[in-house]
Amino acid sequence: MSIKNYLKRKAEVINQELKDILPSEDEKPAKLHKSMRYSLLAGGKRLRPVLTITTADLIADRGEEVLPAACAIELIHSYSLIHDDLPSMDDDEIRRGKPTNHLVFGNGIAILAGDALLTYAFEIMSGLEGFKKDYILQASNELAVAAGNQGMVGGQVADILAEGKAITKEELDYIHRHKTGALLKASVKIGAILAGANQAEIKALTEYAEEIGLAFQIVDDILDIEGDSEKLGKTAGSDLASDKATFPALYGLEEAKKLAKQKQEKAKEALEIFSNDKADLLAELADYIVERSY
Amino acid sequence: MSIKNYLKRKAEVINQELKDILPSEDEKPAKLHKSMRYSLLAGGKRLRPVLTITTADLIADRGEEVLPAACAIELIHSYSLIHDDLPSMDDDEIRRGKPTNHLVFGNGIAILAGDALLTYAFEIMSGLEGFKKDYILQASNELAVAAGNQGMVGGQVADILAEGKAITKEELDYIHRHKTGALLKASVKIGAILAGANQAEIKALTEYAEEIGLAFQIVDDILDIEGDSEKLGKTAGSDLASDKATFPALYGLEEAKKLAKQKQEKAKEALEIFSNDKADLLAELADYIVERSY
Repeated sequence: MSIKNYLKRKAEVINQELKDILPSEDEKPAKLHKSMRYSLLAGGKRLRPVLTITTADLIADRGEEVLPAACAIELIHSYSLIHDDLPSMDDDEIRRGKPTNHLVFGNGIAILAGDALLTYAFEIMSGLEGFKKDYILQASNELAVAAGNQGMVGGQVADILAEGKAITKEELDYIHRHKTGALLKASVKIGAILAGANQAEIKALTEYAEEIGLAFQIVDDILDIEGDSEKLGKTAGSDLASDKATFPALYGLEEAKKLAKQKQEKAKEALEIFSNDKADLLAELADYIVERSY
Repeated sequence: MSIKNYLKRKAEVINQELKDILPSEDEKPAKLHKSMRYSLLAGGKRLRPVLTITTADLIADRGEEVLPAACAIELIHSYSLIHDDLPSMDDDEIRRGKPTNHLVFGNGIAILAGDALLTYAFEIMSGLEGFKKDYILQASNELAVAAGNQGMVGGQVADILAEGKAITKEELDYIHRHKTGALLKASVKIGAILAGANQAEIKALTEYAEEIGLAFQIVDDILDIEGDSEKLGKTAGSDLASDKATFPALYGLEEAKKLAKQKQEKAKEALEIFSNDKADLLAELADYIVERSY
């Protein structure tokens, strides 16, 4: 089975679980639940939860069991997109090929839907069953750190403050490690922690995740220049338009592509401690992340 | 010691802990941390964490140990105020006698500071030490449910949607039970759970908390009419001005006062299962909540 098919099949399982765990549109307050479901179920590759599942399978064949935790991570990803798209942040109009949440539901409800998705992620985490309680607490803590002021939110703040300014490579590195990297890393680590990975395994997987996190962002920046809006599901060229700091802007396009390739290789090297065939899937996911569109 | 002195002394301990656990303004991203600290350390009665501490003391003399959890609840309260004050929600300019967060830091940073405070609360909860892991998970879950779509956020959505409309008493009850009541109830329950309360104790304390939650909101509505802005630390009459649903508007002022009194009595009745003198503090807090300003 090709990695694209693997991703597609896992995304279907994840989408079904997301539909099941989210409060229904009939439940009160209906408008909030509609707004939450609108963004969460708008599609997307589900890369983060796939990483969680694939990692838990690698460690102890527990991919199916970590599904709720994997979905909690996707909830956090989804909330971050809703808030990032707001007029007071990136002011985006299209996300995954549809009007952004605030254009449909208004800014107030969009903010609250984001808040509710974030909170619901921790409701899911603290309600997990079938794992050592210690592991659940560790995984929840990992998620909170990755999503918070020293993680994703910190990166988004740095990104907003950098807009329209000349920034250094170190600053760009900070933004990407935090804004996108932290949650991707947590996706892998949470799968590993819940499945009972040992310290050496967690160390290797963390390295893998850091490399694919940066590779992912570099490729995202490149696609924003080279891709077409339809395929991206968001406005191509929007980084340039909003004067965002990107890898191609700082390194040049060719050098950025080389950097992505380097990180792809380093990610796969980190997996060498696993003799198990299942690490192949993570390696192929690294390939997919870098080669997805060019 | 009078209950006012007790509240004041506990608030000092809580304020010190909040200062200590929040990331410093020197840490990157400084602007985010400044914004978080600006709202969190702006003062306030700290009623929620005081309830947590007082309850844990009642159950097992563990008030001091639940201090971090108590602060996590205050973080969530603080985030909710920042988001509620935004132009797309209540559009308030003054909070605790100071300009609201978004007026000082801008809407984007204010939203992110709220997101970070909410996330940090769950970082604290999942990192708690010295309690049974089971209790920590239960308490975290309680907090997430109380803060989320079926709790505080749900109430805020209903409140926003009700603005300018004629609503029923049932609808007003829904708004208050969720918007303010849920987190007040969680404050008491989390103290009880972490301290190891038994089922009968949790049941009694839940009833107590539900009654004081409603009493609190009724009195808040009354103070918005009768109080002066300086004492409130926010604009008096703002509910009327924004055409908000309130108890006095639906029941009349005298009836609302009677209702608050009833709930105060019921709250104290719920405490009767405790022979321990320490329940007196919770009873006095119920009195304080209702009698705080008239």
